[in-house]
Amino acid sequence: MRIKRIRMIGLVAVAALVLAGCGNLKNSSFGANSTSNTTTGSKTTTTTGTTTSDDYEGVIKNGQYRTSKSRGVNVSQNDNVMNLKSFEIGLLDVSKKVFSTDKYVMQEGQYLKSSTVENWLGRYSKSNQSGLNPKDNGKKGETTRNPIYLQQLEEQDYMVQNGSKLSLGGVTIGLGLNSVDYYTKVQYGATYETKISTTELTAQGKKMANKVLQRLRQRSSLKNVPIVLALYKQSSNDSLVGGNMIGYAVSKNGSTSVSDWKSLNWNNYVFPATSESKNAGANNNDESDFSSFKSHVQNFFPNLSGVTANAHYKDKSLSKLSVNITTKFYSETEIISFTQYVSTAAKRYLPSGVPVEITIKSANGDIQSFLARTAKGSSYYTHVFSDQGNN
Amino acid sequence: MRIKRIRMIGLVAVAALVLAGCGNLKNSSFGANSTSNTTTGSKTTTTTGTTTSDDYEGVIKNGQYRTSKSRGVNVSQNDNVMNLKSFEIGLLDVSKKVFSTDKYVMQEGQYLKSSTVENWLGRYSKSNQSGLNPKDNGKKGETTRNPIYLQQLEEQDYMVQNGSKLSLGGVTIGLGLNSVDYYTKVQYGATYETKISTTELTAQGKKMANKVLQRLRQRSSLKNVPIVLALYKQSSNDSLVGGNMIGYAVSKNGSTSVSDWKSLNWNNYVFPATSESKNAGANNNDESDFSSFKSHVQNFFPNLSGVTANAHYKDKSLSKLSVNITTKFYSETEIISFTQYVSTAAKRYLPSGVPVEITIKSANGDIQSFLARTAKGSSYYTHVFSDQGNN
Repeated sequence: MRIKRIRMIGLVAVAALVLAGCGNLKNSSFGANSTSNTTTGSKTTTTTGTTTSDDYEGVIKNGQYRTSKSRGVNVSQNDNVMNLKSFEIGLLDVSKKVFSTDKYVMQEGQYLKSSTVENWLGRYSKSNQSGLNPKDNGKKGETTRNPIYLQQLEEQDYMVQNGSKLSLGGVTIGLGLNSVDYYTKVQYGATYETKISTTELTAQGKKMANKVLQRLRQRSSLKNVPIVLALYKQSSNDSLVGGNMIGYAVSKNGSTSVSDWKSLNWNNYVFPATSESKNAGANNNDESDFSSFKSHVQNFFPNLSGVTANAHYKDKSLSKLSVNITTKFYSETEIISFTQYVSTAAKRYLPSGVPVEITIKSANGDIQSFLARTAKGSSYYTHVFSDQGNN
Repeated sequence: MRIKRIRMIGLVAVAALVLAGCGNLKNSSFGANSTSNTTTGSKTTTTTGTTTSDDYEGVIKNGQYRTSKSRGVNVSQNDNVMNLKSFEIGLLDVSKKVFSTDKYVMQEGQYLKSSTVENWLGRYSKSNQSGLNPKDNGKKGETTRNPIYLQQLEEQDYMVQNGSKLSLGGVTIGLGLNSVDYYTKVQYGATYETKISTTELTAQGKKMANKVLQRLRQRSSLKNVPIVLALYKQSSNDSLVGGNMIGYAVSKNGSTSVSDWKSLNWNNYVFPATSESKNAGANNNDESDFSSFKSHVQNFFPNLSGVTANAHYKDKSLSKLSVNITTKFYSETEIISFTQYVSTAAKRYLPSGVPVEITIKSANGDIQSFLARTAKGSSYYTHVFSDQGNN
């Protein structure tokens, strides 16, 4: 009985680690004692170590993480941080379709530096002929002006280990395209919006991706490697969920244009649905499961302020559910009991077969406790934080 | 190999659940289908369910958590939320020495209501003859005035299940005593401090505990149950760690006074030590282990803003380590790689044999990722949050 339980939880834990996307079981290696050190010139390159074959390892050089050459550009380009996070996670997910996590190590982009990316994100003009966004046509009307289509651009490098060396095995370029372009008519003036249809932003994105591809192919080191071009649709600034990947294409054998685009039907919704967000693409069963969970949990305390969820869909199937619960109270014993209760309620009501994460936070944003279950798991891993607060 | 790994993680997971203090494997029960429903009159009482025998279940009545009758009083009494959290956790830990988690269910205090606790926390005066703090002697000097010794008071009830009924099996009362009493000389004026020695606050606490005991014994329902009296030393308002339990006594067989106090040598420290906090009681090896971890981790990014830890000691042995890492960057791929790296570094450098929790947060307090290892575990459970932000 005891042994059975341990085995069952073992399976849960393995799946949990898969979900978590990181850890230290496989190839965890750094420092002088490591077996997977690779030497490039006199410098030491190692990898971060990872948990499972579902995740890429990262690249460490001389004890420091090899950060992107355009580090920080996309941070400043996003008013909604959810667009940054889901863009990068989406890029990893698309890359996994082409570059297997068994063979490839992920390196933050090393070929496009900040000034290059900043110029490409700008409007085309006499002084910035590499600008991918259309030139300013002088108009200020919401539908008459030329909007900014391309909001962020990211390069990810995929490395292969040859003996003791890491060499470039492929590149993924993501283009984040606005569904709403925010602008002002005068400096510090009111904000206006130009809405961009998915059809239009997709067409513009494909054109821009081909221009980017041509430019990359001119570099000798990128002349022949596979290049994945991925298009991402940014969500609006007031959205509680990030945007989503809408399509990708792979350029092989040094080709300088791609036309074979695969579309991705990935979507994010907020539960419960509001009159503004009708969640047309979400599964009704998932919504009613969540609603049962919510009403069960919301009665627990006299004043629980909110239970919402971000629901991620791939091809109309729920792929991940992130539940956010906000409490108005601090009492540690209440949080412990509440976490026990939520764990039971989640197991009973929330959809099975998909990864679920649940965070319980105080009204001021401090995390109080955390629960997670993997796609294959039936029980929840739970953790109550006792040393958080006054952050 | 595969099976071995699963078993190993299984053990980690079991231990993790023990640490987490909540879950849903044992007696998880609520609602009409539950086996552990108990009926008091026409009302349905159930329990929250818990993970392991190391934790108390909580009490649910008619689908709602049975909150304390003095709910919220201690929240308003604490400027440093760490004092509230560590007080409640400490009370649970002391209670476990007397009321086994196998036999008892924890119920938030039902006998002392808010107004009672508020009066007891007040100064003794003509209009508040139940005030436990000394009367105002009219003086304003830091050493001449009568300070407020008792800052917070909490009742926890421990219930036993008799057939289909829950009945009271014991009570724990915690008294939170100031090491620093903050006061103003005029309304809205500057804040002054009266420092109170541990010897003095302990003596005052014991006296007050005996008064509380006498009052509780006058109530017919509390006449004969075991009552645990626990003393807690509050940390200062600017402390990054909470205070700690300093002693307790058990009153049995309806006794109206206790004299057999057991002292507790529990302490909290912040790593790294500063010139102000010398961590005299902490183990030097633990501090140097943490320092190795910190320097290894801090080089990973160009700009990592902080690595600190709260170290909890019981009888001069490390009992728990909570590490807080603050990052200045948002990039999701960086957080994933960093979490992998931290997991490996923690396994290599941090003390083994004690539970460790590590949180990685952005500068604005959003949690980015979380790692935990149990006392018995060797590997870390890790989770990267992808749906947090804009909180």
